Amino acid sequence: MHNKNSCRPEFTARYFIESSVPTEKAADIIAGEQSSGTFMSLPGETDALKSRSRARVTRIDTLPPVFEPSLRSAFAERREHKGVYHRAEIEIAFPIANVGPNISTLLATVAGNLFELGEITGLKLLDIDMPSTYASQFPGPKFGIEGTRNKAGIHGRPFIGTIIKPSIGLSAAETAEMVDALCAADIDFIKDDELLADPPYAPFDERLHAVMPVLKRHADRLGRMPMYAFNISGSIDEMLRRHDAVLAAGGTCVMVSANWVGFAGVEHLRKHTELPIHGHRNGWGAFSRHPHLGFSFAAYQKIWRLVGVDHLHVNGIRGKFSESDDSVIASARSCLAPFAGVTPLMPVFSSGQWASQAPDLYANLGSTDLMHLAGGGILGHPDGIAAGVLSMREGWEAAVAGVSLEAFAKTHPALQKALIKFSHT
Amino acid sequence: MHNKNSCRPEFTARYFIESSVPTEKAADIIAGEQSSGTFMSLPGETDALKSRSRARVTRIDTLPPVFEPSLRSAFAERREHKGVYHRAEIEIAFPIANVGPNISTLLATVAGNLFELGEITGLKLLDIDMPSTYASQFPGPKFGIEGTRNKAGIHGRPFIGTIIKPSIGLSAAETAEMVDALCAADIDFIKDDELLADPPYAPFDERLHAVMPVLKRHADRLGRMPMYAFNISGSIDEMLRRHDAVLAAGGTCVMVSANWVGFAGVEHLRKHTELPIHGHRNGWGAFSRHPHLGFSFAAYQKIWRLVGVDHLHVNGIRGKFSESDDSVIASARSCLAPFAGVTPLMPVFSSGQWASQAPDLYANLGSTDLMHLAGGGILGHPDGIAAGVLSMREGWEAAVAGVSLEAFAKTHPALQKALIKFSHT
Repeated sequence: MHNKNSCRPEFTARYFIESSVPTEKAADIIAGEQSSGTFMSLPGETDALKSRSRARVTRIDTLPPVFEPSLRSAFAERREHKGVYHRAEIEIAFPIANVGPNISTLLATVAGNLFELGEITGLKLLDIDMPSTYASQFPGPKFGIEGTRNKAGIHGRPFIGTIIKPSIGLSAAETAEMVDALCAADIDFIKDDELLADPPYAPFDERLHAVMPVLKRHADRLGRMPMYAFNISGSIDEMLRRHDAVLAAGGTCVMVSANWVGFAGVEHLRKHTELPIHGHRNGWGAFSRHPHLGFSFAAYQKIWRLVGVDHLHVNGIRGKFSESDDSVIASARSCLAPFAGVTPLMPVFSSGQWASQAPDLYANLGSTDLMHLAGGGILGHPDGIAAGVLSMREGWEAAVAGVSLEAFAKTHPALQKALIKFSHT
Repeated sequence: MHNKNSCRPEFTARYFIESSVPTEKAADIIAGEQSSGTFMSLPGETDALKSRSRARVTRIDTLPPVFEPSLRSAFAERREHKGVYHRAEIEIAFPIANVGPNISTLLATVAGNLFELGEITGLKLLDIDMPSTYASQFPGPKFGIEGTRNKAGIHGRPFIGTIIKPSIGLSAAETAEMVDALCAADIDFIKDDELLADPPYAPFDERLHAVMPVLKRHADRLGRMPMYAFNISGSIDEMLRRHDAVLAAGGTCVMVSANWVGFAGVEHLRKHTELPIHGHRNGWGAFSRHPHLGFSFAAYQKIWRLVGVDHLHVNGIRGKFSESDDSVIASARSCLAPFAGVTPLMPVFSSGQWASQAPDLYANLGSTDLMHLAGGGILGHPDGIAAGVLSMREGWEAAVAGVSLEAFAKTHPALQKALIKFSHT
């Protein structure tokens, strides 16, 4: 992690790159563009300056080339480039002093203009790494998994949760009715949809004050209050005010559309928060869905971990989204994996989920430190919502016990009916 | 713009979509997912709720299909989808009441989970539109083109500018020396590089207080102060503090890495600002470079216009980036075009620019309301920086006069030498 020449502290970024020029040259262009380099040799770039500020290419792992570019480049086409496009995984080391504990400048450095360089026909940020002394200068999650469990009074098992549906359009009173039904079913976690913020027919404050008494009434019965993630996404002032309103009303979680509030906004909320921050990643597909452009989730979750969300969505296996199950599992593992001493994130599975995914999730993660959210898998259970929640919990009991769902279902009718109803949907 | 059935106010989003299911079905899935729809029929989605909250597909323009998906979908592959992938441009109308004047919820609605839907193998947000009564509820640019011109005392011609290079690594004193040389050359505009925020060897405050006296000294001579865009990107508190420091020191512009500060952060700065906000779009390639994924610039600039940046980067024609010249021109035109009564943005051209691009830019835009930034094209001029700036200005004089650069250069030696030096680079 340190440059042997100067002992300057560094952080690293790993990329997939595809380029119309040989990999060594492309890597050098990237390292230059993203640090002290200029595309013309200028008198100001002295050796002392380079040694202090210039990024270094620290690793090149060559991959088989291709003969059509993944992404077109008018720059390469003007040069009538034909033939081979070089592929590699590369690592670049940047001086920490170039950036400091500044999220937007960190991103301008590892994910800035480089995506658009004319020689580049594919570029994905695969990972970042940094010394813990640097990582510790960022806020990081305030609650993480343990803090979230403590707030919710749920230990030793996953959070079984759901999303208020229809996503948008319910009045405050209708929302409270649905929350009442979900709490009566002993649910652990409920979240607003990301589309719902403050519509005139269900203003934020009305929803908060309709929902909170319901949560509190069930808390008296359950001995724990179901965690409700109120979507507070909005302007900085609105988010802080809504956070304070949730806190004052006795709520235990706030949610933001992380990508669209943005890094500085979520960081500001994190510095202020007294509640876990539920990070919704809607829009993530635009950053990630092409295999050779944008961000890998491994890098993305590290950025959000530095900023300090506590939970982060990872889709669901066998869900309704385009992502492969392997990718979903890898995402969840990365949230739980060590990273420079920064608190891990609680991964949130949702989309087309029901009891059946529990064994595969547990087998792949070896952990119950997660949220498993189901819509139809809970609300659509033939014996009602309580049986829907119970079927999810039984699925996890079977998974942790290492018993097949079919065998466990013989003595657990809620799970049994879920298997019958949902297996072929 | 209004639903004829209910007269509910609406805004619209236009998309390119490619899908494994017929376009009508895919469009309906998107409209449902991004409003009140659920993937299971739920009792709560009443007709009254649908009429209030459900988005409508208002237009489908079918395009020729393809037989390989642009983006893979594990969902479609699990269904063993083979054969045709349907392509179309579609328009969806959303109820304004679903969102309100909330940037992050607007984006969660028009650019949220839809990128990841299993049936979708390509999706680009092409444009958005809205009534001026809705647009006027967002902050919008405080200065725009006229406000920027007034701050800089530059009228009737483009801003000729440059970027401090090397991007990062100079001390505060070295930066001030370079600014002195640029101001002595009568430059209009100078900006920090996006990589430079607050490094220990050139802290923000030191740079500010080294640069400002230089700008003021030249202002006395020029009768106008060259505009310097200080990169204030950082946390919310840092940005406000740095904005205030620039203002107090007599500076006239602040800059942010717009994508990485994020929408709520830049909106917060906009509400506070007394200075034009120079929007740097580094990272934009990750959102845009694939033709069938992410954002078009036409939509992107509208979002930033609602938020309220004053200037926005658009790359340069014949530059070092991958973008085509047609795309660069279209981007600049969109910044200048009317949009729901929101103040236009000043487009900023940079990357591989010199005097030669002026005629093409003027022919395509019919305007000098722009910034034309050159690095090597100014600093690398054989007769020095002043001749570099002069050659750019002469290029624009020729363009506006409708005289060829070659003809104009016969009586303008700075332009003449630029043509000789740069024509074959």
